[in-house]
Amino acid sequence: MPAARPKILITMGCPAGIGPEIVLKALGHPEVYDWCRPEVVGDELLLKETAKRLGLPWPSVPIHSLTNLKGVRPGRPSAATGQASYLYVTWAARACLQGEAEAMVTAPISKWALSLAGVKEPGHTEILARLTGCTRFAMMMAGERLRVVLATIHLALSQVPQTLSLEGLGETICLAYEALRRDFAIDHPRLAVAALNPHAGEEGLFGDEEKRIIQPAIELARAKGIEASGPYPADSLFYRAAQGEFDLVVAMYHDQGLIPFKLLHFRDGVNITIGLPLIRTSVDHGTAYDLAGSGQADESSLLAAIKLAAIAARNRGRDVYGQDTSFQG
Amino acid sequence: MPAARPKILITMGCPAGIGPEIVLKALGHPEVYDWCRPEVVGDELLLKETAKRLGLPWPSVPIHSLTNLKGVRPGRPSAATGQASYLYVTWAARACLQGEAEAMVTAPISKWALSLAGVKEPGHTEILARLTGCTRFAMMMAGERLRVVLATIHLALSQVPQTLSLEGLGETICLAYEALRRDFAIDHPRLAVAALNPHAGEEGLFGDEEKRIIQPAIELARAKGIEASGPYPADSLFYRAAQGEFDLVVAMYHDQGLIPFKLLHFRDGVNITIGLPLIRTSVDHGTAYDLAGSGQADESSLLAAIKLAAIAARNRGRDVYGQDTSFQG
Repeated sequence: MPAARPKILITMGCPAGIGPEIVLKALGHPEVYDWCRPEVVGDELLLKETAKRLGLPWPSVPIHSLTNLKGVRPGRPSAATGQASYLYVTWAARACLQGEAEAMVTAPISKWALSLAGVKEPGHTEILARLTGCTRFAMMMAGERLRVVLATIHLALSQVPQTLSLEGLGETICLAYEALRRDFAIDHPRLAVAALNPHAGEEGLFGDEEKRIIQPAIELARAKGIEASGPYPADSLFYRAAQGEFDLVVAMYHDQGLIPFKLLHFRDGVNITIGLPLIRTSVDHGTAYDLAGSGQADESSLLAAIKLAAIAARNRGRDVYGQDTSFQG
Repeated sequence: MPAARPKILITMGCPAGIGPEIVLKALGHPEVYDWCRPEVVGDELLLKETAKRLGLPWPSVPIHSLTNLKGVRPGRPSAATGQASYLYVTWAARACLQGEAEAMVTAPISKWALSLAGVKEPGHTEILARLTGCTRFAMMMAGERLRVVLATIHLALSQVPQTLSLEGLGETICLAYEALRRDFAIDHPRLAVAALNPHAGEEGLFGDEEKRIIQPAIELARAKGIEASGPYPADSLFYRAAQGEFDLVVAMYHDQGLIPFKLLHFRDGVNITIGLPLIRTSVDHGTAYDLAGSGQADESSLLAAIKLAAIAARNRGRDVYGQDTSFQG
């Protein structure tokens, strides 16, 4: 069993983005210390400068200062800031894998700054997948009213139908099921699978992916004992899920899942990478270089990400077949 | 100028669906008579039977009873109910075109019942387009928090990218602009155009429809003086629109527009066919044959449709270049 308050590493994100500001702001909320023992992975000098410039209180938490950046200008990413953000993530991931911390929460980094530093991966998920040797993973968005997992992610819409596969979708359903049980302590999760086509294809009139791919994937999951159902017409499904009829929706493509999710959780949504051998939650927004340095950045999403990481860390410590030690926030 | 309270024809919809029940329930709301002078187009005997069976008050409004149906069983559509529902719609449309009424509001009909009666069109929109000889029309969904117009409607998702065209999209934008000015009395409407691909294609990385089709269509509209902007990443756009940043979103496909619309307006959304030479609003749901006869049907959407038809009828009477006679509900 983990300690009641898990140790959580918060990576500072791109030093030129809003990461330093939102990390400081989030750590100013006293409830964080009820949830977990937070530690920051970043640049101590830069954090101190940020706190001073914006008049933010200095948090009394351990800082793992991995860089000594000088002359970082808010809103101006560079090879140095890309390299630094990469370093924070890899350091935190190794610490989690080695059992030195129980979860990591990531502030935003940018594909552009990473590429300036020669990092090939476009974002956290791909970096963490490589570091952990993980090939089965998916992106879940979680909020109080809605949880969504994506069967396909960054693709042109025209590529979605041909990319959807029985195996891939079946795996996404299984990963979501495992994550709901293990990290969210929902012992009998109800998963709804969205249709790809309007009106769920209306009996094959508008596309046959429901019959060829989605229905068989649901049947496969059900054969494993997973309470998955669908395919449901997507236009009414997210309303039904938000009303509490389902614990999670499996969306077929990026905007299908993220349009309703952001409508309900624009400020407090959390991104959680499921399938990894470590717990990683993240803010649901980017580096916001245009806001960096202004003091106007909103820490709500980071705060929600810290809370969810703490809940998941505590839940991973329990016996998933037990009933009495779950934490649902 | 129309009378302050426009005459509005409410068609009863499929006699075997929830239409008779929701028409009676809607007409039990006293505010309806502040908005308009409603008249019903349907079957008087069937309405009386429904009122008696469900204990609903009988409304003192003119009933244009076009059929004498006997033995209709709730939830059991037939050639006779399909034929009747077709008759109500065509009668009401002709009355509107001849200036005998100022708008029509339609209760739901079904493609299945229409086809049993040999009607080739799948729904109201196509029937009305043929009756009015209209080739430029579009479907708008309107609610207090969000208005959406669809650039493509009932298509397999795989057909959407190849169906989107510069001309079609440009026309949809123009129709929406005209409808917002004429029917909604918004003199300077702000239209947001959604992207097709995630992250608006991320500079061509995930699809090029934004550059090839959507951006040029927006430029065409702007050249005509329409305040259209985009293409915006769809995942955050609907939140922005619901916060009041835009008056309407032009969605590229059915679920892109209807997922957020139904999330916000599941019960009170209104469907309005724009571009027709008459005003037609409609409920945002189907015949609900499974609910028919139960007394459980919800009239909220029909009530909202009546209100919007009344507002549009009053606004069409004003000079669209004037400022002082608008009705925004």
